[in-house]
Amino acid sequence: MITIHGYSPSGNCHKLRMLLGHLGREHRWIETDSARGATRTPGYLAKNPNGKVPMLETEDGRILVESNAILVWLAEGTRYFGGDAWQRAQTLSWMFFEQYSHEPYIAVARFVCGWTPMDSERRKDLPRLRERGNQALAVMQRHLETQTWFSGDSYGIADIALFGYTHCAADGGFDLSRYPAVRDWLDRVRDEPGFVAMPPISDDNRNLIAQSC
Amino acid sequence: MITIHGYSPSGNCHKLRMLLGHLGREHRWIETDSARGATRTPGYLAKNPNGKVPMLETEDGRILVESNAILVWLAEGTRYFGGDAWQRAQTLSWMFFEQYSHEPYIAVARFVCGWTPMDSERRKDLPRLRERGNQALAVMQRHLETQTWFSGDSYGIADIALFGYTHCAADGGFDLSRYPAVRDWLDRVRDEPGFVAMPPISDDNRNLIAQSC
Repeated sequence: MITIHGYSPSGNCHKLRMLLGHLGREHRWIETDSARGATRTPGYLAKNPNGKVPMLETEDGRILVESNAILVWLAEGTRYFGGDAWQRAQTLSWMFFEQYSHEPYIAVARFVCGWTPMDSERRKDLPRLRERGNQALAVMQRHLETQTWFSGDSYGIADIALFGYTHCAADGGFDLSRYPAVRDWLDRVRDEPGFVAMPPISDDNRNLIAQSC
Repeated sequence: MITIHGYSPSGNCHKLRMLLGHLGREHRWIETDSARGATRTPGYLAKNPNGKVPMLETEDGRILVESNAILVWLAEGTRYFGGDAWQRAQTLSWMFFEQYSHEPYIAVARFVCGWTPMDSERRKDLPRLRERGNQALAVMQRHLETQTWFSGDSYGIADIALFGYTHCAADGGFDLSRYPAVRDWLDRVRDEPGFVAMPPISDDNRNLIAQSC
């Protein structure tokens, strides 16, 4: 059985929980609190020198890191990563967009709001993070005005990758009512068979977010 | 014939030139100066709403963006993207590492040094960019102490993706003599058949770099 080392409030980790839910695939989940240093221990760094979650471990101890590469491996041969070479490249294109133009702003704004103290220096970054995050949401809105999914003709791993942090973008101070096609797409994702919602975050994080947005 | 819209001093664009060189594949290159707004024109944004280079255009007008997704599409079925599903996922893992943990520090430090005025506010970011970039180089060094390539058993698109900005990291103030295995790997890449070097950057950029490092 595969093991996922993941932190439940992380959208990058939640992506894997979503796909495993759709596939009905059994797995072991080791809760790994990256916000409190659990990925910086010598034992963890020996497996993943980049010190991040999620990390997948096979029964015989092989390691795969980077959430979107793990999605590709888990989805290979399933309906969640389909189409011809061109369509699969388009799916990957949205997944690279997610990691370069979306996550570093939308996920990081949420982290700063909910996981750093109210007097953190990092809060000065919020205006720029929100400006760039809104640019990413606008690119998604534009795509979804004419297309149903990001993974080609049907729901798949590009949708899962982008759902990871888009569905909780309000935690970072983003107003999704400005992006109606994105909100409709989030609802379509939630309607997919086997959909798994992110577990609630702690009261501490929720209180910090309430004071930040 | 395919068309690449690319800016020659960009490592992200150079990746495509490298792979096309290895493949001996004919293509049209449209020089697109992203540093001077050529990706923000209405015509360009109509093709790529995210406003970045590189962009691949097919003869019948289909568009593919994100350098690493383009590498996957071009390399599909060739020796540059080989192995089984696990090995291909490892290749993608390094490509996501490159876009998330490497490029935003090493490429951006180089951009700040060579493409912004000496009094730019962005130069205040250089210490943090260099700290995070050195972390990425240390992860690469550790891998290369026991492995020859990032793409599995032989040279391929993960090596090309990481070569893009590693080979010019000194432009951002990084000292590659601290990473001997990385330097040896750069030399191995340069020895690959069909290797294409990045064209020289302009004197203006070179002068700014000389004052910055």
